[in-house]
This record gives sequence, C-alpha cells and structure tokens, in this order.
Amino acid sequence: MKAYESVIHHVESGILDGSLKVGSHLPPERDLAMQLGVSRSAVREAIRALEAQGVVASAVGAGKDAGTRITDRRTRALSRLLRLHVALAKYPVDEVVEARVALERSSVVLAARHLHADQQARLREILDRMADPAVSQDEFNELDTAFHVVMAEVGRNDLMTDMTVAVRESLRRPILDAERSLADWAAFRAELQQHHEAIYEAVVAKDEGRAADLVDAHIRAAYAILPITLGADPQT
Amino acid sequence: MKAYESVIHHVESGILDGSLKVGSHLPPERDLAMQLGVSRSAVREAIRALEAQGVVASAVGAGKDAGTRITDRRTRALSRLLRLHVALAKYPVDEVVEARVALERSSVVLAARHLHADQQARLREILDRMADPAVSQDEFNELDTAFHVVMAEVGRNDLMTDMTVAVRESLRRPILDAERSLADWAAFRAELQQHHEAIYEAVVAKDEGRAADLVDAHIRAAYAILPITLGADPQT
Repeated sequence: MKAYESVIHHVESGILDGSLKVGSHLPPERDLAMQLGVSRSAVREAIRALEAQGVVASAVGAGKDAGTRITDRRTRALSRLLRLHVALAKYPVDEVVEARVALERSSVVLAARHLHADQQARLREILDRMADPAVSQDEFNELDTAFHVVMAEVGRNDLMTDMTVAVRESLRRPILDAERSLADWAAFRAELQQHHEAIYEAVVAKDEGRAADLVDAHIRAAYAILPITLGADPQT
Repeated sequence: MKAYESVIHHVESGILDGSLKVGSHLPPERDLAMQLGVSRSAVREAIRALEAQGVVASAVGAGKDAGTRITDRRTRALSRLLRLHVALAKYPVDEVVEARVALERSSVVLAARHLHADQQARLREILDRMADPAVSQDEFNELDTAFHVVMAEVGRNDLMTDMTVAVRESLRRPILDAERSLADWAAFRAELQQHHEAIYEAVVAKDEGRAADLVDAHIRAAYAILPITLGADPQT
C-alpha cells in the first residue's frame, strides 16, 4: 500500500466503523501525518482523493467549518466515477444495458407512484420538443437523456436516480456516435418517440407494471439497433 | 475550481471525448503542470485522486508500463465509493432498500439463467453453514452477505454485481447493529433462512419470476423488522 492509500484507508475505516461521522473534523495535516507515520504530502494527496470522491470537504479560515470535515453533501462523484469506468469499457455494453433495465424498471414504477402535475408537464414538454422535426440529432439525444433522468427523479429516490443517471450518462457519447452511423436515423427516432410516449402514458395512468415492461422493451430495442462500441481502439 | 480539480477535469474530458483511451500515457508530471498552468503538486494530487478511483495506474521504472497510464483494470473503486456514501447517510435507508430490490430482482433473474453446478454447490454450502446453530450472529451476517454476493456473481454481470455488492456492503454494519438489538434474533434468523432457501430453490428451478418476487419480498421483510439507522449521531 502506498503512503497516501494508507491515509485513505484510515479515513474509510473510521467512517465504516462509525468513529468518523458526518461533520467530524479530520486532525490537521501535520498531526495526521505524525499519527500515521507518513509524509504531509501523502496526507494532502489522500485528502484530495477523498475530496474528489465527495467524502470530505475542505475549507480555509478559522470558523467551525474550517479545516477538513466529513461531509454528507451529495455530489456528482458517483455519477462521474461510473461514467468514467463505463467509458473505459470496464463493463461491456450488454452488462450496462442489463443494469439500465434493472434500474429504470424500478424508476418508472416509482415514477408512476409519485408523479406530480408539474413533473408531468416537464415530461410532456420534453416529449413535445423531441417531436419537433427542427430538433437536431444532438439536441434530440440530450432530450432523450433528460426524459430518462426526469423520470428517475420523479420516483423520489436519490440513490436510484444517481445510479440511473450515471449509467445513462455513461452511454451518452457512445449512443450519439452510434446514432450518427445509423443508415435510417429518422426511422429510429420515430420509434424512440413512440416508445417514450407509451412509457409516459403508462406512468400518467399509474400503470406500474406496464410502465416497467415498456421501458424494459424500449431500452433493449434501442441497443439492439444501435451499433455501440465502448472504449475501442486502445493506443498501445 | 481548485488547481488539482482542473487537472482531474482535463483527464476526464480526454477519456470522455476519446482522446485518452485505455493504455494511453499521461504526459510526465512536469509537462502536464506546464501545459495546464498549475503546480506539479496539483498534478500529483490529481493523479492520486484518479488512481484512487481506479482510472489511472502508476508504475515506476523505464519499461513501456512505466509512468501513469489510463487503465481498464477493474477495481473496488465503485463499490468503495458507493459504500462510503451510503455509510454517510447521503441516501436514506428506504431509498437504499428500494435500490437493493431493483438490483437483486435482476440479479436472481440472471442467476436463474446462468447457474452452474459449482456455483449451486457454493450457494448450498453457504445455506448449510447458516443452518448450523453454532454459527454466531457475526458469522451468520457474513454468510448472509456472501449469499447475496455469490447470487449476483452467478448472473455474470460485473456492473450489476459491483452495484449489488456495494449496496449490500454499505448496509453490512447497520444490519449487524440492528440485529444485535432485536428482541428475538432466533426467530428473525429462522425467517431469513426460510427466505434464502426458497430463493435458492427458485433459482435452481430456473423460475425467474418467482426468484425475483421472493428476493423482493425477502429484502422488504427484513428491513421492515430491522430497526436500522444510518449515519446517525453527528458529532458537531
């Protein structure tokens, strides 16, 4: 284990055994370095790594928020990490598709249960914009992502939303690249729109089972058509 | 954006736009620092953060593997991050339970489809050990985790497995603490065993729908009984 890794391990263990809780301060850099028998730069590197993971937050100054503290602020750390790992093809496309199906089946069930009028209006607006022939391929793709993200958010489950968004976003660029190479993009687009409309209607009708089956079929159908490749063409 | 964050952002953008692929070398620390107009220590901190996230791997020496390269090696980075975030109660228990249900419903469906004889024997062995009255509460809990993890692995989907394991592991300690405070642990344990046996039998019988419904009911029933609290009692 490298020196900075032992510092990360120390903090993680504290969080998991409950000795470090949300709001707990880490000791000053110098004290922690002495305590763990590592250099101050190793401590600083570990803090940065934990900060990038959304586990600690650092602030300068002299108030009670100064220094490095364990934070419960939600960050995009999980989404970012998952997106990078998918982009690096640590997970093959068919596995990512299967995970998307699992997450989004539940997302739409929860959405059917919790949909509010303003959220319904937001989804309707997205679908109406997608139906506009003037919308470019890039914009259509962004709206497609937005449809799935908003649907996840409607379900009022932040963990499911974060995982759903992470998996969907990890596929944003591969999907866009694949769509660009489709011979008949217009036909594919029309099919996606039909799917989205049907999912929307099932959620509005609070038909949980139908919404789940429709989003399941939608995701599988899209990937069956798209020639997606991930992390291809390594340079070495 | 802090200096080290701009370095992380630079590398992430490269990965997402495809200019950095698996195997690509990052420029030497000094060159990258000059290119981005930051200090060498900011570059070093960013590299450590990316290393902790399993995105790059560093090696010393002079061979072609020396230096810092983008890696596709699977690590425990995703599991670790998710586990920490759940431990810090960024996600309430009922959301984590819902996510577990979504993931494990799909896990057992995939398991029913892919189960091999040696995996079946491994699951049988875990269940037999759980049935041993001499097994302690801690050991029982470890075996319970193992049952769910092996089931996820049987489904041959690394992403689903990583997410399932992360969600399950994030609850390991809270579950153990809650079980210790149960008035009638023996009765709860007997109920869990019945659930596990029924899930096992449905998977062995390749009855996908039944396996999904059983694991769904099992997870919900367990949390309905357990007095779980997450990330309680902040120290400030």
